[in-house]
Amino acid sequence: MSANYDIAVIGLAVMGQNLILNMNDHGHKVVAYNRTEARTTEFIAGPAKGTNIKGASSLEEVVSSLSTPRKIMLMVKAGKPVDLTIDALIPMLSPGDVIIDGGNSNFTDSQRRAAHLEEHKLLFVGSGVSGGEEGARNGPSLMPGGHPEAWPLIKDIFQSIAAKTDSGVPCCDWVGQGGAGHFVKMVHNGIEYGDMQLICEAYQFMKDLLGMSNDDMHAVFSKWNQGDLQSYLIEITADILAFQENGEYVVDTILDKAGQKGTGKWTGINALDLGIPLSLIGEAVFARCLSALKEERVKASTILKGPVPEQLPAEQWVDALGDALYAAKIVSYAQGYMLMQEAAKEYGWSLNYGGIAQMWRGGCIIQSAFLDNIKEAFDKDPKLTNLLLDDFFKDRVTDAQANWRRVLAVGITQGISMPAMSAGLSFFDGYRSKVMPHNLLQAQRDYFGAHTYLRVDGGEERHHTNWTGEGGDVSSSSYDV
Amino acid sequence: MSANYDIAVIGLAVMGQNLILNMNDHGHKVVAYNRTEARTTEFIAGPAKGTNIKGASSLEEVVSSLSTPRKIMLMVKAGKPVDLTIDALIPMLSPGDVIIDGGNSNFTDSQRRAAHLEEHKLLFVGSGVSGGEEGARNGPSLMPGGHPEAWPLIKDIFQSIAAKTDSGVPCCDWVGQGGAGHFVKMVHNGIEYGDMQLICEAYQFMKDLLGMSNDDMHAVFSKWNQGDLQSYLIEITADILAFQENGEYVVDTILDKAGQKGTGKWTGINALDLGIPLSLIGEAVFARCLSALKEERVKASTILKGPVPEQLPAEQWVDALGDALYAAKIVSYAQGYMLMQEAAKEYGWSLNYGGIAQMWRGGCIIQSAFLDNIKEAFDKDPKLTNLLLDDFFKDRVTDAQANWRRVLAVGITQGISMPAMSAGLSFFDGYRSKVMPHNLLQAQRDYFGAHTYLRVDGGEERHHTNWTGEGGDVSSSSYDV
Repeated sequence: MSANYDIAVIGLAVMGQNLILNMNDHGHKVVAYNRTEARTTEFIAGPAKGTNIKGASSLEEVVSSLSTPRKIMLMVKAGKPVDLTIDALIPMLSPGDVIIDGGNSNFTDSQRRAAHLEEHKLLFVGSGVSGGEEGARNGPSLMPGGHPEAWPLIKDIFQSIAAKTDSGVPCCDWVGQGGAGHFVKMVHNGIEYGDMQLICEAYQFMKDLLGMSNDDMHAVFSKWNQGDLQSYLIEITADILAFQENGEYVVDTILDKAGQKGTGKWTGINALDLGIPLSLIGEAVFARCLSALKEERVKASTILKGPVPEQLPAEQWVDALGDALYAAKIVSYAQGYMLMQEAAKEYGWSLNYGGIAQMWRGGCIIQSAFLDNIKEAFDKDPKLTNLLLDDFFKDRVTDAQANWRRVLAVGITQGISMPAMSAGLSFFDGYRSKVMPHNLLQAQRDYFGAHTYLRVDGGEERHHTNWTGEGGDVSSSSYDV
Repeated sequence: MSANYDIAVIGLAVMGQNLILNMNDHGHKVVAYNRTEARTTEFIAGPAKGTNIKGASSLEEVVSSLSTPRKIMLMVKAGKPVDLTIDALIPMLSPGDVIIDGGNSNFTDSQRRAAHLEEHKLLFVGSGVSGGEEGARNGPSLMPGGHPEAWPLIKDIFQSIAAKTDSGVPCCDWVGQGGAGHFVKMVHNGIEYGDMQLICEAYQFMKDLLGMSNDDMHAVFSKWNQGDLQSYLIEITADILAFQENGEYVVDTILDKAGQKGTGKWTGINALDLGIPLSLIGEAVFARCLSALKEERVKASTILKGPVPEQLPAEQWVDALGDALYAAKIVSYAQGYMLMQEAAKEYGWSLNYGGIAQMWRGGCIIQSAFLDNIKEAFDKDPKLTNLLLDDFFKDRVTDAQANWRRVLAVGITQGISMPAMSAGLSFFDGYRSKVMPHNLLQAQRDYFGAHTYLRVDGGEERHHTNWTGEGGDVSSSSYDV
């Protein structure tokens, strides 16, 4: 058996299969393995027929087929299966071999696995893979992070199979240490939740307040996709709205109960942990949760009455809605970048923020024209503290804000739920506030819990007021709110 | 040494000291202990002088002073100190003795500690204690949970020191198994975050849009405290707004950077974990995070411009604002109860929802008239699925909603950030929607990730549409969004 294969992929669900076919197309010799061998056999006899792909029937065969340092990519279910596969591989590998986890792992698991493999002198890469099955087949966005020494070993394969921007730059670059690759993929998914929710809110506004048909809405999304809002999600939304089967619009046949698999939730949890106000994505996650309570909503709809929406003239509102969508999207990305910047500080990563925008520029679900503007913003100022403070985004959000407010005010008045667009505006108005009302909140905390406060006239000295004339001056230590 | 003391309290920060004095007032013989003995000495010579409180200089002395089964309450800092103290006590105790953790522990730690003590045949109680230093001294709200066998042993002490409702019912009852006590306390704190944020938003609206002075606002909060909005937080807000020192209003001297100690964050994380749309509290936590970015906001305020707020006539808006506050508060509590109901299912607790409202009725930060209505709602229908569906709350939110919408629409138009009030309304409008726009979202997920969907015409069968004519019919398994 000749050990001259370039890489192995373990796990032959659709993502694994498609990545392998993609690698093969780019001249890489790939070993394919699946725990249930029948799947390997089917793959080799089916989609892989006539290629250079080799099916292996055991992990031993996988390992012995690879040139060294070996590169093994896991495309198995996130969680326990990744750990089990890694533990099975460790004793078979040699120092300097690389294990790549391409699943949707939580970045905290990747942090742990990087440390674990280091003990065995093996290199770990946790790579975000985005683009769904089609991206995997024809060019995904790849976000690898982990041991930097692994990058030169996998760079050619990864960049060759990745999507390319219009100017030919691969949508794949080294993200950072430890779990940084999976972290950035997590933020990508959180942003995706936000983008999808914003589109849903625009859709509902058009449907319920502007009385537009699927074809009308198809036309609007198609037009938006020619301008600043150009993005994969806007594009597929246009496709979806027009898609008919058996004489009916498929979108109208689909139940409004959103599913989710956890990465949006992880983003929200991480934001809470790091103290970053990721409010728009948070609302997007919660909106999915609420949508899932279908039976309860149906019942509530008969009990809780709101205003009866008046129909508004579409021609006066569609452009305003586009502005609202665009402005809210700016806030969502600004929040996502705030989270990445805080995580880099917290976990000791150096992240290339412009490069991340470029990795997302093609192949992945959130690919959009907009990401070029983000890349430019960080090229201009690599230390930019917030996207909203970049000239381009500042001007855009300023131009769009009157319409953003108009759309939300009418939505609120007419009883349309627009949680993500609202959260975006609340954030924007809070962020640009020199003074927030939290002096009162600090007073409350000091009143009931002796939590002390800082004064506006500066300094780090903490003050306590004896608000009630009782309670004394002991500050609270075991009891915290 | 006679072993005839009723209970020991370990940890003599202000909360521990005040609980001990409270117990002593009610005729219980208390042993006081602090790791740093000087603090014990000071306490005994100071606040405890002339009482029956005994200072102990070692854990051995604590244990040997107590009648059996022993009851030892920890008022030490949450986290490691609780575990260390428990581990130090275990070898000194006898089967059936009770360790009570009265700190702000995470309920997951309490779940773990209950199991750990059970192995040693000891009883564990994790008790929420709310009311700050003043509550601890004069009657806190107590939320004990853990091993049910412990409840009869501590009930007299706990109910005697707890706050009482107007009709004399103690604001303390058994919450449930394992970590249920700390869980309910966590939700209490999350609700407290929501209430405080809503008050801040009302304050800012009055200050910035209605041009009201501190005295004007004091008058409004005082008036609100006479009606439906009656609550401790409204009351202290009125006090705070009027409070002057050295000729200045203290509230105006306080820096608008909110602190937090984690329990609001925990509530948000738990909601994300359990998939419950706790959006209002989520926004309250994020608003604190945003307020903490003071320096960045000051900078952003010079760069990002919004509308210049016009002054509105206070007499036309104050009542509307009260309605907005009240309606949003209903949503916040409805969400908090949704979380408790889901947690009860998830963790196998049976929670007494009306009883919880009663425990919060006095002594604690969120005490309010409103809680009586919650108690009544669950007395009427113990299986009530959502507070919003109770007749009382349904009528109130229906009456208030026009003003709620009016206040938010003007706030949004004028550039006032009202994230929690907005999140509340978005939730309300989503919750009462028979159809949400998430059919489109499910279509998107199926388009890019073959996630499949349910159809409106029923059944549990999942469908996949081949939207692009490529991609095939394999559903995604390793790649999830």
